[in-house]
Amino acid sequence: MGNDTLTRFLSSTGRELHGSAIRRMETVAARQPDLISFAAGYPAAELFPLDELRAMTADLLGGDGSAIQYGPTRGYAPLVAALAEEMGRRSVAVTPPQLLVTTGSQQGLDLVARVLVNRGDAVLMELPTFTGAIAAFANAQARLEGVRQDGEGLDVDDLESVTARLRRDGTPAKLLYVVPNFQNPTGALLSQARRRALLEWANRHDCLIVEDDPYGALFFEGEVPPGATRPIKADDDSGRVIYLSSFSKTLAPGFRVGWMAADATLVERFEIAKQAADLASGTLDQRVAYEAMRRGVLERLAPRLRAHYRARRDAMTAALRARLEGRLAWSSPRGGFFVWATLPPGEDDAALLERAVEQRLIFVAGSAFFVDGSGHDTIRLAFSAAPELLIDEGVARLGRALDRRPVGSRTR
Amino acid sequence: MGNDTLTRFLSSTGRELHGSAIRRMETVAARQPDLISFAAGYPAAELFPLDELRAMTADLLGGDGSAIQYGPTRGYAPLVAALAEEMGRRSVAVTPPQLLVTTGSQQGLDLVARVLVNRGDAVLMELPTFTGAIAAFANAQARLEGVRQDGEGLDVDDLESVTARLRRDGTPAKLLYVVPNFQNPTGALLSQARRRALLEWANRHDCLIVEDDPYGALFFEGEVPPGATRPIKADDDSGRVIYLSSFSKTLAPGFRVGWMAADATLVERFEIAKQAADLASGTLDQRVAYEAMRRGVLERLAPRLRAHYRARRDAMTAALRARLEGRLAWSSPRGGFFVWATLPPGEDDAALLERAVEQRLIFVAGSAFFVDGSGHDTIRLAFSAAPELLIDEGVARLGRALDRRPVGSRTR
Repeated sequence: MGNDTLTRFLSSTGRELHGSAIRRMETVAARQPDLISFAAGYPAAELFPLDELRAMTADLLGGDGSAIQYGPTRGYAPLVAALAEEMGRRSVAVTPPQLLVTTGSQQGLDLVARVLVNRGDAVLMELPTFTGAIAAFANAQARLEGVRQDGEGLDVDDLESVTARLRRDGTPAKLLYVVPNFQNPTGALLSQARRRALLEWANRHDCLIVEDDPYGALFFEGEVPPGATRPIKADDDSGRVIYLSSFSKTLAPGFRVGWMAADATLVERFEIAKQAADLASGTLDQRVAYEAMRRGVLERLAPRLRAHYRARRDAMTAALRARLEGRLAWSSPRGGFFVWATLPPGEDDAALLERAVEQRLIFVAGSAFFVDGSGHDTIRLAFSAAPELLIDEGVARLGRALDRRPVGSRTR
Repeated sequence: MGNDTLTRFLSSTGRELHGSAIRRMETVAARQPDLISFAAGYPAAELFPLDELRAMTADLLGGDGSAIQYGPTRGYAPLVAALAEEMGRRSVAVTPPQLLVTTGSQQGLDLVARVLVNRGDAVLMELPTFTGAIAAFANAQARLEGVRQDGEGLDVDDLESVTARLRRDGTPAKLLYVVPNFQNPTGALLSQARRRALLEWANRHDCLIVEDDPYGALFFEGEVPPGATRPIKADDDSGRVIYLSSFSKTLAPGFRVGWMAADATLVERFEIAKQAADLASGTLDQRVAYEAMRRGVLERLAPRLRAHYRARRDAMTAALRARLEGRLAWSSPRGGFFVWATLPPGEDDAALLERAVEQRLIFVAGSAFFVDGSGHDTIRLAFSAAPELLIDEGVARLGRALDRRPVGSRTR
């Protein structure tokens, strides 16, 4: 039987799966080590606390073996308790029944999509937004609707008009996905006034909010007023906010430990869905995350991460100013991993990326982040992982790629 | 807003989620440390190679941090290559494009269910079968159909008659899930003749086979002829067999590393589904699994595991003979983790379990493993994790629970 015939066994989900443009880019990068990558939002490996991690794993693997035995689906109980405390530090009052450990926060997105979204349900997402969330909701065959952003993040007026249009269409909005802190890909920090407006919107229109917060701890000191990263979930009296976060950006992503905080009734459902999805997240990984909290490793690391990523951001924006002022427009984020750039008129993200690859540079074509098919005049430049010296060289390559635009090339 | 009202946001999947009876049992056990558990199929923690694991993690965490960075969704490339070799040792010729690393083989089941099964598709499963597979296919809203077993495993005649009945019903069989080696829960070893018959059945009726093989390496020396555990996949010329396996029973389950081997076209779909499910399996976990193969740890461990679990099986069957001969009937498996027992006439699995908990013993009520609502006269006794001394005491408690059956208690 040939391969083609086997595809007839695919389910409707299997046929319509949404692949990741970023993962594809990284496959390209893995094969070409002299490439400079501004593509994936990888954390800087030189900041991983390897000495502490070696000490922790040695301790954890010196016991009775429970650190590598099966564990509860809900998560390692001391970690769950520690996460309740961490949420308290983020101004969110939750108890263990409202928490679930997930295999990275990507699994949290997947569980939300499966447990809450029927085929055709309207899911609202920022224009642009995180591709992993697009994939999770697309795989649940949601109707994805975009909401515009400006410099302060999601545009609440546009949210209202999209909501009204959906209601007229007979597909009322069910759920809004939002990344309020140092958004992926724009880097925007959603204002506190708008966060309150979102909660009010959810209550008024009877919707849920999925608040994804991987970058909240990575604000750049002195640029962000106290309280500016306060989660929407902190003021959620109605249980409508499902909050997701992760250790991937603050400890290391290879451990695949994230968590969700939500209404206990919903968390119970997410937990049952997780039983069949992967039984439980890695036991050693969870124990390491717990030890990193308990031993103060994360607390000591956080200021170093903030300073480090700020320096990277500075390096990238300085290189852009020096080399591409007047040709590109870009954001200067106050936290997180990404600079978001707008291309010159007539330039196309995919075409530019092709020419960039010839210059041995990759980034992510901006259109991958838009659920409405737009964004072909944008690109995402991750400054998080490239060594500082290579950031300037990468921007130089970007300039050469822009230079090589064929005369009279097609525009969209 | 009360909790009850939030459930109205659930998707049809979210409403109909299938919870795990075994996971619930373990929640009971975790709270009562003096309980003896024959419930979950946990591997024996005293055999975990902790010294080697400490050495490996120290080496892996001494490098450039790549052991805890994001990795490819397909899996750590050297591990994927090593799995191709391992499959060769299992008589299955596959190359990396036919392999995917999964977050435990539970994730493999979930990916299969999502990518291949539409609501209402007929999925055939052994009576009884692994609850994690029941949950994965139930969550995809499959129509689950049971096929009887006897001492040699799945009954091919019954398979044919179920297939014919489904065809008459207008819901032709799409997929058969089978655990050929030391089945969970019965411990049966499916004969090679029947394996060939299954392949022939799949080709004739145009179906897929999901072959789940977590226990194949755990045969009891001298009791299993050479070649008896040869996978169905070894003789699959048509690409119809999707083979799943795992390091959970041969190294340790807390690492959550499994894999699947299937037609490359399907594997590509499973990989895309995995991107949105958890991005990638744990990087350190995969590196550890790879090192355990590369350094020969698994190879050295395997004979010890076989001897150890055989001794546990012997302890349990000896205790059953000494204490419950003539009251229970049970299997004596030639590999794996489980004894499967049939209760005296009129006894009920759930009622017996309730009385066993009073005696501080837990096991799994057999009906949890049956997709047709039957099996209330059966129980599964895992001998894998209980210390040898406690096995006899656990069987004594089982005897006391049987003794306390109320006179005139209801029968099913």
